Amino acid sequence: MDFIKPYIQIIEERLSQLNFPDEPENLYSPIKYSLSVGGKRIRPALTLISAELFGSTIEQAVPAALGVEIFHNFTLIHDDIMDEAPLRRKQPTVSAKWGRDIAILSGDVMMIMAYQQFQHYSGDKLSLLFSLFNKTAVEVCEGQQMDMNFETQRNVTVDEYIKMITLKTSVLLAASLQMGAIVANASAQNQEAIYAFGKNLGIAFQLQDDLLDTFGSEDDFGKKIGGDILARKKTFLFLKAFENATGEEKKLLEEAYFSYKKPNPDLVKQIFKSTAADKLCREEIEFYLKKSLDSMNNINVSHPNIELLKNLSEQLIHRTV
Amino acid sequence: MDFIKPYIQIIEERLSQLNFPDEPENLYSPIKYSLSVGGKRIRPALTLISAELFGSTIEQAVPAALGVEIFHNFTLIHDDIMDEAPLRRKQPTVSAKWGRDIAILSGDVMMIMAYQQFQHYSGDKLSLLFSLFNKTAVEVCEGQQMDMNFETQRNVTVDEYIKMITLKTSVLLAASLQMGAIVANASAQNQEAIYAFGKNLGIAFQLQDDLLDTFGSEDDFGKKIGGDILARKKTFLFLKAFENATGEEKKLLEEAYFSYKKPNPDLVKQIFKSTAADKLCREEIEFYLKKSLDSMNNINVSHPNIELLKNLSEQLIHRTV
Repeated sequence: MDFIKPYIQIIEERLSQLNFPDEPENLYSPIKYSLSVGGKRIRPALTLISAELFGSTIEQAVPAALGVEIFHNFTLIHDDIMDEAPLRRKQPTVSAKWGRDIAILSGDVMMIMAYQQFQHYSGDKLSLLFSLFNKTAVEVCEGQQMDMNFETQRNVTVDEYIKMITLKTSVLLAASLQMGAIVANASAQNQEAIYAFGKNLGIAFQLQDDLLDTFGSEDDFGKKIGGDILARKKTFLFLKAFENATGEEKKLLEEAYFSYKKPNPDLVKQIFKSTAADKLCREEIEFYLKKSLDSMNNINVSHPNIELLKNLSEQLIHRTV
Repeated sequence: MDFIKPYIQIIEERLSQLNFPDEPENLYSPIKYSLSVGGKRIRPALTLISAELFGSTIEQAVPAALGVEIFHNFTLIHDDIMDEAPLRRKQPTVSAKWGRDIAILSGDVMMIMAYQQFQHYSGDKLSLLFSLFNKTAVEVCEGQQMDMNFETQRNVTVDEYIKMITLKTSVLLAASLQMGAIVANASAQNQEAIYAFGKNLGIAFQLQDDLLDTFGSEDDFGKKIGGDILARKKTFLFLKAFENATGEEKKLLEEAYFSYKKPNPDLVKQIFKSTAADKLCREEIEFYLKKSLDSMNNINVSHPNIELLKNLSEQLIHRTV
């Protein structure tokens, strides 16, 4: 994914140039920390690539890209409070480092700072970006609430799961791309097409992430394999396996997910395979990847970034990491 | 304050007409609850009064007014998590009723919903409202952080205290008024004047609130008297008393605020009086009230709402409740 590096470099540079007030020091330090700890910067890079694709300069799209990235990092800070997560990107989370209250408040300020980036726009462009950002931000929160609800909800359907990951993960990816298109004054049809590309890609990406969490290689994935199973996450793999399992297998899955017994990842993985949940998951990934690539055909401009985005999605999906 | 009632009624009516998605139910119920539990609705009423003053219809200012009120209630939800407050307006707080995680997330959504109200505006009006709202929102969070910091900060100056209440309380009052002026296309000078009116009024109002918390009558004030002392709040009264106290009194104040001994409110009240902190606080209130009324003279339009706002501020400050 070398071609994406120049875009990411712009984002890193501009993030590092953001100005923060000095005081209150313990309100702004966590924000600087959160933005400096890293992350793939995929979303803001997509905004820049999309803006360029539709004929804008990269520069014009930078504030929107930063807004998306700051918002994404705000959601991580608040999610980490809810999950009581000690680490994020191998570094202490804001809540672990500064405590709950500062994590809440510096997260709040980050959300506002994300909005502030859009002050760089005016007129119709501001209106369009603002509405899309508001809609997307609400959806991301809804997705997070659904995800939390699933933890205690006995019956979750595959459709509900797809809806949850769509809201929690995909719509922000989709909005990142559409924002680039808005900045470039792309037509409504093109905006819709690039949004659909991002949304379906996001779903495929999250399903792939679930698959790697269970069947990936620890070295490549960078996280402990089987984490989702140990956390009893109701992923596509589990939901499909539970749907298809019968007899002893069903009982074992029930025990692993709904009893006090600690799940045995190896056993659960076996059941995921014997019920063909892994195969179905791969098919589902290909289904959304295809939908995603198909939407690209509805874009009626020609620009090298189209091929670039297609390659990117293939690579993201067929990654081992 | 009968004249303000019709404005408040419009706000109540329009708040009750807000549409919320059905799902996730436990994300939106706390928001509906928070907005239905009441509150004085002073801020949004000020937006309407100000818009009318500068020649706009009330209707045009309703979305901005609702935005301000929704934002204010969002801050209360997050503040109540940080304070671990069981009650607000004599009802269970969102965090007490639904728990920390839902309080964080429904608060986040409320902040976004506050922003969504501004989608009703476009062009320059949107730009101006949006920038003012962003700036104010950040300031409110900074004020909350300062307030939290004061709890463990040994040395707090009176100036720092005034800065804290300005950010935490006054700027939103000031912005509420300026937003009405923006909606009405008021001149920059008039916008500035009405903002200054609100800012100084807000400071006077908060100082009056502190005074009533210690010297008010429980029946009138509706809260337990002496709460600030028991919570060792470093209010203007304490800071002035501590500045002026010597010898035995200084020692007693130190014991009450910085030792493990529970403060004795009656004793502390006596010291507030003997050090003239109560008198100085009253003078400070009058100082800011006068500043506030003076700013009104910089408004170069004539409308009955000017007298109305002046009366309102006199009444708010010389209230016993």
